[in-house]
Amino acid sequence: MRIKPEELKYSQDGLIPAIVQDAKTKEVLMLAYMNSEAVAKTLATGETWFWSRSRQKFWHKGESSGNVQKVKEVLYDCDRDTLLVLVEQKGAACHEGYYSCFHYALAPDGEVTVIGEPLFDPEKVYGKS
Amino acid sequence: MRIKPEELKYSQDGLIPAIVQDAKTKEVLMLAYMNSEAVAKTLATGETWFWSRSRQKFWHKGESSGNVQKVKEVLYDCDRDTLLVLVEQKGAACHEGYYSCFHYALAPDGEVTVIGEPLFDPEKVYGKS
Repeated sequence: MRIKPEELKYSQDGLIPAIVQDAKTKEVLMLAYMNSEAVAKTLATGETWFWSRSRQKFWHKGESSGNVQKVKEVLYDCDRDTLLVLVEQKGAACHEGYYSCFHYALAPDGEVTVIGEPLFDPEKVYGKS
Repeated sequence: MRIKPEELKYSQDGLIPAIVQDAKTKEVLMLAYMNSEAVAKTLATGETWFWSRSRQKFWHKGESSGNVQKVKEVLYDCDRDTLLVLVEQKGAACHEGYYSCFHYALAPDGEVTVIGEPLFDPEKVYGKS
């Protein structure tokens, strides 16, 4: 069977969530959104492309920071409405300098614990915000 | 620091995507959506609760199939708009009988390959649809 990016199921705003996972360690790095063109770009280039909802434009992950994601495998789910992208991550995925964006653990009582250590100083990579 | 479920960032329809990952093997099992009450129920009960967008009601995963998800850890990301829930999965996560919902691999040329084998017959668990 062969499908086209536009045959995936997109939300009303034309987006599909894409979970990004480290292909080797299986750590989940981030979740971002793609439109069908970003899916096509990701498949064609072998690096992740997203649609930035806040900036309303294409976002080639790592373009400014150098922290690109080399695509190893793309999977979709039984509902065709979510992607799972296995990657080789350069540097770190999170704009806060952590390897994964998921570095806040939430306990049942609401207590938050920061997990891990940042790998880089965001100010040096992205400039002061 | 301590936060309440309602302090996470929800979309306009009041939902936050929750990635569910096997706590041991790190396999990503599914993605579903929670509202703040489902987040609270998940934290309080130690099993996953979602908001079903198609049925517009709470969905206690495994309630009909027995394939519940025992919560081991809940993480949130740097934008506070996605959850990562590490679980111990009973049976299989996917309603198609596969352990993970992500069992379709999409090659750059659009070719689709089914990965793995179903662990149960969906008709026997959920009845004929």
